[in-house]
Amino acid sequence: MTIQLIGYPASTFTLIVIATLEELGIPFELTPLTNFADIKTPEYLATKHPFGMIPVLIDDGFKLYESRAIARYLVNKYQGTKNSTVLIPSDVQKAALVNQYISVETSYFTDPLKKLFYQEIFSKRHGQPVDPEIIKVAREEINKVLDVYEKLLEGKDYLTGEFSLADIVHYPYTQYAVNSGHGDLFNDPKRPNVARWWKIISEREAWKKVISENKFFD
Amino acid sequence: MTIQLIGYPASTFTLIVIATLEELGIPFELTPLTNFADIKTPEYLATKHPFGMIPVLIDDGFKLYESRAIARYLVNKYQGTKNSTVLIPSDVQKAALVNQYISVETSYFTDPLKKLFYQEIFSKRHGQPVDPEIIKVAREEINKVLDVYEKLLEGKDYLTGEFSLADIVHYPYTQYAVNSGHGDLFNDPKRPNVARWWKIISEREAWKKVISENKFFD
Ligand SMILES: N[C@@H](CCC(=O)N[C@@H](CS)C(=O)NCC(=O)O)C(=O)O
Ligand SMILES: N[C@@H](CCC(=O)N[C@@H](CS)C(=O)NCC(=O)O)C(=O)O
Repeated sequence: MTIQLIGYPASTFTLIVIATLEELGIPFELTPLTNFADIKTPEYLATKHPFGMIPVLIDDGFKLYESRAIARYLVNKYQGTKNSTVLIPSDVQKAALVNQYISVETSYFTDPLKKLFYQEIFSKRHGQPVDPEIIKVAREEINKVLDVYEKLLEGKDYLTGEFSLADIVHYPYTQYAVNSGHGDLFNDPKRPNVARWWKIISEREAWKKVISENKFFD
Repeated sequence: MTIQLIGYPASTFTLIVIATLEELGIPFELTPLTNFADIKTPEYLATKHPFGMIPVLIDDGFKLYESRAIARYLVNKYQGTKNSTVLIPSDVQKAALVNQYISVETSYFTDPLKKLFYQEIFSKRHGQPVDPEIIKVAREEINKVLDVYEKLLEGKDYLTGEFSLADIVHYPYTQYAVNSGHGDLFNDPKRPNVARWWKIISEREAWKKVISENKFFD
């Protein structure tokens, strides 16, 4: 049975799962929502996601929610079955570093990027006013985080040294930042390591496919 | 070589790791900080945690930071070596549910609990004024989250059905809430499942040991 992904192609957290599926070469069917209100119905809360969120994965009757948990599941179950891409290595220490950098993304990277996303993408999409002051503060915070990433990426092309799920979780918000006029943050001559990292991971075939099939990236 | 944990016994995120070590029966040495300024020195940032946080684990020369990543590493490496406690099952679907509920904790549970913690514990500890309005709002948010947990825990003693790392990550903030006069949230007759869950997990030997050895829980 084909894997079913309930989500929305514009959703950053859905995109983490889509990128993981594409990297592992797993066929899937995206069941998009027609309306954001659909994820707050009593039926959706009772049977899909109790906090009313996307994405949700259904794999042969097994239901799972929360993007990073879904991505880990797909790796544990399907890695090595369709291609040779390794997103979480079997070595215990290497796997630990993947988890460490996923937690770095969740704890320090995504919050300021989210602020930028809400202003540049969400507000504009919904015809709400944009607050330049929030954008300014978000950019300052992102600059600080990326200064740390610059050190983390010293002498490395990827966060753990090898491409992994830790890089994938950074794709959606970074891509939206780049597409909405903030590409300078990820291509700053003062941060050659960050610039090299983003160039290399954004040019991977799987991510290029995700972008080219997604009408929300323009 | 004994595992070294750099942290602070009062720190919620350090306590996640300590609880995991105790459950798995792994001996360790806690290297407490004398001063919170110690984790912001250039030396600490360069060699311990690049974002200036605790906890950090050092296991025979291998360094790892971020509490949930450390806990996963300890399970992957040591589960089954000292006792028979299983914190992440080997079954792929069962392991996926552990990750799902850890993400639920990180995404929806801990934020409102953190607000309560800052008012009731952190502000008081540092002689700062306490804001009853923030406490009120935090309690409302916690009530909403726990109403969802009530459904998640229907017919189950633990989040995934069996005790796991998903339960452990809920310990520290819940214990602080209970100890600072908000135990009613976790012992509400309107939420018998949540009350049963907290009673069962808080009475585990490992957690009782953590509490009894910790002078910050009073
Ligand atoms: N922690 C969740 C976050 C999911 C999330 O925030 N999804 C957004 C779309 S990108 C959503 O469903 N938002 C609806 C809402 O916030 O009400 C995950 O990792 O899957
Ligand atoms: N995402 C981190 C959070 C760690 C954290 O916030 N630790 C607190 C102590 S409980 C800390 O180091 N705070 C210092 C600061 O925020 O400057 C983890 O899971 O380990």
